This record gives sequence, C-alpha cells and structure tokens, in this order.
Amino acid sequence: MHAVGRTLPANGAAAQITWHVAELFDPVKRRAAVAEVGATHLLHLAWFAEHGRFWRAPENVAWTGATGELVQEFAAAGGRRVVVAGTGAEYDWTGSGVLVEGETPLRPATLYGVCKDATRRLCEALGKELGLEVAWGRVFFLYGPGEDERRLVSGVARALVRGERAPTSAGTQVRDFMHVDDVVGAFAALLDSAATGPLNIATGEGVAVRDLVALIARAAGAEELLDIGALPMREDEPPRLVGDGRRLREEVGFEPAVTLEDGVAATVADLLRAAARR
Amino acid sequence: MHAVGRTLPANGAAAQITWHVAELFDPVKRRAAVAEVGATHLLHLAWFAEHGRFWRAPENVAWTGATGELVQEFAAAGGRRVVVAGTGAEYDWTGSGVLVEGETPLRPATLYGVCKDATRRLCEALGKELGLEVAWGRVFFLYGPGEDERRLVSGVARALVRGERAPTSAGTQVRDFMHVDDVVGAFAALLDSAATGPLNIATGEGVAVRDLVALIARAAGAEELLDIGALPMREDEPPRLVGDGRRLREEVGFEPAVTLEDGVAATVADLLRAAARR
Repeated sequence: MHAVGRTLPANGAAAQITWHVAELFDPVKRRAAVAEVGATHLLHLAWFAEHGRFWRAPENVAWTGATGELVQEFAAAGGRRVVVAGTGAEYDWTGSGVLVEGETPLRPATLYGVCKDATRRLCEALGKELGLEVAWGRVFFLYGPGEDERRLVSGVARALVRGERAPTSAGTQVRDFMHVDDVVGAFAALLDSAATGPLNIATGEGVAVRDLVALIARAAGAEELLDIGALPMREDEPPRLVGDGRRLREEVGFEPAVTLEDGVAATVADLLRAAARR
Repeated sequence: MHAVGRTLPANGAAAQITWHVAELFDPVKRRAAVAEVGATHLLHLAWFAEHGRFWRAPENVAWTGATGELVQEFAAAGGRRVVVAGTGAEYDWTGSGVLVEGETPLRPATLYGVCKDATRRLCEALGKELGLEVAWGRVFFLYGPGEDERRLVSGVARALVRGERAPTSAGTQVRDFMHVDDVVGAFAALLDSAATGPLNIATGEGVAVRDLVALIARAAGAEELLDIGALPMREDEPPRLVGDGRRLREEVGFEPAVTLEDGVAATVADLLRAAARR
C-alpha cells in the first residue's frame, strides 16, 4: 500500500505503507509518484481545507483542476478505480434535510461545494472516456482526535478539558456526525467495493447539536461549564442535515462502528491524556 | 482594445487591436498579459476545439482548470465583467429540442459538454466571491468563412465548389445555425450589456439540415451534385436542437443580422473566390 502526502506524517507512517512525498500542484512530482506506484486503485482525499476559509476560498478551483489532471495521469499509468472525497455541501440544503444520492437536487451554496460538485462531474465524465470506475464519497460532519480546535466537537471538548466555559448556540440544528475512524473505514470499504457514482459517507442518523455537546460535557465531567444558548444561531443554519446512508450500507456493506457516545468519550479522553502530559 | 492569442492572426490584427501572444497554459505569460492590459472586461473564447476529437478529449479538463485560474487573475488585476463561451451541448438533448436557459435541464452527454458546464459553475461561483459579473454565452451551430472543412456547411460547400459530389444524410434533423459574424456580434453585445448568467447565442430558428445543404447547392449552382440521403443518419442524432433566443434579444438587445440565405451565399462566394485564385 502506498500513500502520498505533502509531508511525512508527524508520527511516522505505518509499517505496511510506503510513503511518497509529493505536492499535487507540482505536475512533475505528481506524475512521478503516480508512475512509480503503478496502483490499480486511487483514493484521493487531498483538498484545500483551511478552517474558516475553505468554504469561500478561490483556491478550491485549483483543486478541481489538479484533481482532473491526477485522474487522467492515473488512468494513463494503468489505474482502474478511483474514489474521491466529496461533500454533503454539494446538496441543496434548503429542503427536507435528508440528503439522498441521485434524488436530492445538487445546489451547492458555497464555492467549496460548487468546486467539489464540478470535480465529480469532471471525474465521472473522464472515467467514462478513460475506462475508469469512479466513486464519489460525500462526507458530512466529522469529529474525532486531531481535529482543528476551531471546529465544534474539538473546540467544546478542549474548552471543557481546560476548565473553561463553553458557550454554544441553542443547538437545535440536527446534523449527521461521523467519527473519523468510521469515515476512514467507509472510504477504505468504498475503494474495495464495486460501487460507483456518488455515495454519502454518512450514518443516516441525526443528532441535535445540543445533545452532542451535552455528551461532550458528560464525558469531560464538566456539565456545569456548558452554556447552551449563549451564542446566537446563524440565520442561514439549516435545521436538519442528515445523509441517507443506505447506499453505503447496502452497496458497500459498511456499517459505522463507533457510537456517538464512544466516539465523543474517546475524543475527550485523548484531550485529557494530552492535558495530563503537560 | 486588446486581444490575446497563441499566435498572431494570419492576416494581421485590425488597427484598433493591441495583440498579445500568450499561451493560456503558461501561467507566467497569462498573468503578464492580464496585468499588462488591466482590462475591465474579459471575453474568453479559447478552448480545445480539434475537429473530431473535442467532444471526448480529456484535454477539455485542463481548459476548465485554466479558465478558473484566468478568471481569478483577471479579478485580482481589477477586472469587473467576464463573458465566457459555453455550448448548447450543456443541455439535455433528449427533450423537446427547444433549449431554454434556466429551464431545460443541464445533462451534457459528452466530456466537452460536462467540462463547459463545470466551467460555468466554477466561474459563476468565483464571480460571486470575487465581485465579478459573469455571463455565459452558449453557442449552438456555427458556420461561415474559415470554418474547418470537415464540418457540415464548409464540407458540403467545398465539395460542390470543386465540382465533387456531396453525399449527406437524409438531413431531417433541425438545428439552430448562426453565421460566425452574428456569433461574434452577439458576444460583443453580451460583453457590453449588463446581462449575467447563461444566455443562448442562438437565432431561435431551426432549419432542417436538408434545407440548409440545398441552400448551399443553390448558391454554388451545383444542385445536381448533392446526394441527400446517401449517408445514414446517426442513431443518436436528436431530431431538433434550437436555442431559445429571447434572453439574447430582450436582455442584450442583439438581433442576428445575417439571414441563412445571405450567410450561405457569402460562405460559398468566399470559397469560389479562393478557388478562382488558384
């Protein structure tokens, strides 16, 4: 198994992984990595993801272009199957809130969503011409250890672990949260499957943000530090965003293994251990 | 007025045009041209258009990427309005055959159509973030002097002018043909207008291909050389493809000026003059 990243992983690569350092925007290194590995299967997760900026950043467009180039080079090197990370933000978020592949209209409200959606269109059309299988995994709301601390779960958990107050919105909005280990497992299963086209990488279960942060507070033993309702709700916040998980379960055969309780507990435990080491 | 092309025009540029030689895929020259000109309005027509290959060529993907980069650089250099050439092939061609902006579903059947459609999505989303006006002119069926001779009008006209037989299909399919001078005029008017979003660069009138080739034969004085029905119809040939021309007429104020009779006569006369010079 081979992995490609801009840098080596901080804790070293696992033993069964051959690591290649390459920048997706450097065509020479990108082609060299693709040719050297000669893989049949490609899992492409790389994208511009700077917190707070990625939704609207023009940089997204360059990732669309680079992904298109990568897929062509992979086909030319003998590749057969491509799985790319998409996003639940490709869907129209103004409807019922249950987002179904091939049914819910695609109407991304952000440049990020537009670029992911355009990338899928390009990859699928390229796949048809070049004889590649293409599957597209739409990621919803992730959480887990290592997450940027400006994001919801990590942010609340870190504040509580430090003994600081954690103000949140009323938290009535319902979201489909998946632990990062399940997201990784789902992508691995999707790569090994024969499913093609768009598939939600989603649990199919919604949780109200207020219930999620309450779980975090309980795991941290700091329920008194949680201020639910202290922050305003964003006006354009959709009340419900849940990915239909049937294609992932039935066609890929993947079931999420991490319950929200366990996932939150593990995330908080990780932060507590890190705090204790300081 | 400034123009950018990969090479200087064969017959020299018009006096009011400052010509810049730059390759869209060379970021350094591209940025230099954009910065040097400092234009407020950009009309972007460049694309991969090799006859017989462009519908399915993976090269289309690179044009999507390069167009996205160009639009960003144009905005960064102070640009305000962008008009890009799209295609009637972005539409679903399996419906009634009258293709209406914002109504007819977008379901391109070819990689070319997919890449043009994806490019529009990127450009409009970029425009929103970068404060650019974006209009997208969907070109239908062009003809006129200088056309590749493997294309319909030019091909039939050249054969007849040379005294060769011209076999065609039954020609019952109806298409929206626009003379290249009107296409150019429509794009210029669109650039000068305030219209945004997708607009058909179309006459709104359909002509059966058999009637069009009969016009060519009459203009060439060679009706006896025309073999209508000698070639099979392509199985996937849509019976009717006509672009609704209302947005172009009403919002841009552009009316096509070249009738099919005059346009065909001028195209044939051009070929007759060229033949006489040899």
